[in-house]
Amino acid sequence: MADPAPAPLPDPPYYAVVFTAVRTPGDDGYEETDERLLKLAADQPGFLGLDAARRADGLGITVSYWRDEESIAAWREHAEHALARAHGREHWYASYSLHVAKVERAYGFTRPADQ
Amino acid sequence: MADPAPAPLPDPPYYAVVFTAVRTPGDDGYEETDERLLKLAADQPGFLGLDAARRADGLGITVSYWRDEESIAAWREHAEHALARAHGREHWYASYSLHVAKVERAYGFTRPADQ
Repeated sequence: MADPAPAPLPDPPYYAVVFTAVRTPGDDGYEETDERLLKLAADQPGFLGLDAARRADGLGITVSYWRDEESIAAWREHAEHALARAHGREHWYASYSLHVAKVERAYGFTRPADQ
Repeated sequence: MADPAPAPLPDPPYYAVVFTAVRTPGDDGYEETDERLLKLAADQPGFLGLDAARRADGLGITVSYWRDEESIAAWREHAEHALARAHGREHWYASYSLHVAKVERAYGFTRPADQ
């Protein structure tokens, strides 16, 4: 497996969707759907990249990056995504917040290789 | 300890700073500085909230929320924060990305308590 790294992105402006969620205990089909939806999102027009991390206590953050508002709206209306969101509210999430934000500035850093 | 939950936030607009970073192996003073800086950030004018999660492979996401550009700039110029950032590039991070984004819309969900 490749070393972990933040998603590579073009120059701003573009959009970030920050999804912060606390999982309920147990899997209940979550992992399989999560994996499927990550692949599906990556195939959508305007998808730029995604980073995700989850803590042992169940709180996770997923940040997906999109070209514009239209690509976010189209993904929101995708039938399989809409179904998963409804299932998420019923079963997988104790709480969540979703932020749609326009990225104005971005910086990156990669450690120089050791000599 | 309280149950985990996403940071409670006011109505948009406000700003999100998304910091996605891959840690180098070992602690090297990271945990202590991280804890100290989280407390310090929370005391700054314009700080609205923060969520953070890190994966076992070292990739972590910290999203801090701020009232405006001015409060982000003031925190950026805080001497202890600037010192920690320099130390981070020297020691703690293999790579990172930082996004400054204006939150245009936000939604929250909390599971209704079981009957």
